Amino acid sequence: MNHRILTISREFGSGGRTIGRHAAEKLGIPCYDSELIQKIAQESGFSEDYVRTADESAHSFPAAALASRAFGPSVDDHLWQIQSHVILDLAERESCVIVGRCADYILRDRADCLTAFIHADPAFRAKRIVEVYGEREAAPEQRIREKDKRRAAYHRFYTDMKWGHAKNYHICLNSGVLGIDTCAEILCRLF
Amino acid sequence: MNHRILTISREFGSGGRTIGRHAAEKLGIPCYDSELIQKIAQESGFSEDYVRTADESAHSFPAAALASRAFGPSVDDHLWQIQSHVILDLAERESCVIVGRCADYILRDRADCLTAFIHADPAFRAKRIVEVYGEREAAPEQRIREKDKRRAAYHRFYTDMKWGHAKNYHICLNSGVLGIDTCAEILCRLF
Repeated sequence: MNHRILTISREFGSGGRTIGRHAAEKLGIPCYDSELIQKIAQESGFSEDYVRTADESAHSFPAAALASRAFGPSVDDHLWQIQSHVILDLAERESCVIVGRCADYILRDRADCLTAFIHADPAFRAKRIVEVYGEREAAPEQRIREKDKRRAAYHRFYTDMKWGHAKNYHICLNSGVLGIDTCAEILCRLF
Repeated sequence: MNHRILTISREFGSGGRTIGRHAAEKLGIPCYDSELIQKIAQESGFSEDYVRTADESAHSFPAAALASRAFGPSVDDHLWQIQSHVILDLAERESCVIVGRCADYILRDRADCLTAFIHADPAFRAKRIVEVYGEREAAPEQRIREKDKRRAAYHRFYTDMKWGHAKNYHICLNSGVLGIDTCAEILCRLF
């Protein structure tokens, strides 16, 4: 099959973002991650900070998911619509790598989309988030648990798919065991 | 990492067995599938037919799992012990591919074991089981549902791991989308 789009869903600290960047570089196509956030922010009128944390921050989940919609779509529903529109538009226009933002689900009807999920053992991820993002007050293990829980809830709410279930992706890779470079290389070969 | 053992767990009809055989041929190592059943039958004293269906047949699950163990281990518990022993022994002796039989779990403490899960969409699997195993009275979709349910229950009962969850494997591949040859090739490269 001739793939044009590679989507990468990832556990926090698994290196999914780095794998996406490496794969995009090798393939000579753009990788949308923070650039995607800028686009969504521009279209939605929200700040980049708000968009960046919408899939994992406290004001988003689970409070927003459980909130009443008696007065119409929530702020997050609005953001979801903009996000879907931006991702569908990108996929239509150019070959690219898209990291996160439920792009796998949003592009599920496209036959030219390869969907990947990157995960790793908690110990690997804990070490990595301290190296990449620095120390925080909370222990790395706790930060991982929190982020995973919120991403899974967000994903489940908007896609009705179970986060991290193999059948939702074309390929799932353990970056801790296989290595970040090897994961990027496999994805390039499949593309 | 230098892998010596490749385990393949698979959904019924996904071609996991064929992928295992192809990978083993390319790697020049043995593939244990029906040979494994022979070994387990020899060591346990059960017939090959009994061993073959123990992870998916009606007398095994869920009835056996729910049965009282007031009088000691069940027949299936006994079979599980023999199976674990045979697989651990094989892994100790030679580099090989092992298909099914919860080998991923039984060999979980070995650093030289690469664990793969092969899955595919129901339509792909339904077409394939008719091609490979022929027509049966039950519709292929129903045969798939039945087998999946029993394998998942067996796996869950003896390993306490969720069947098909990406985090339980080093790599998960959708053989329907990626193709059986490509899956075998990726596993060989990773090995």
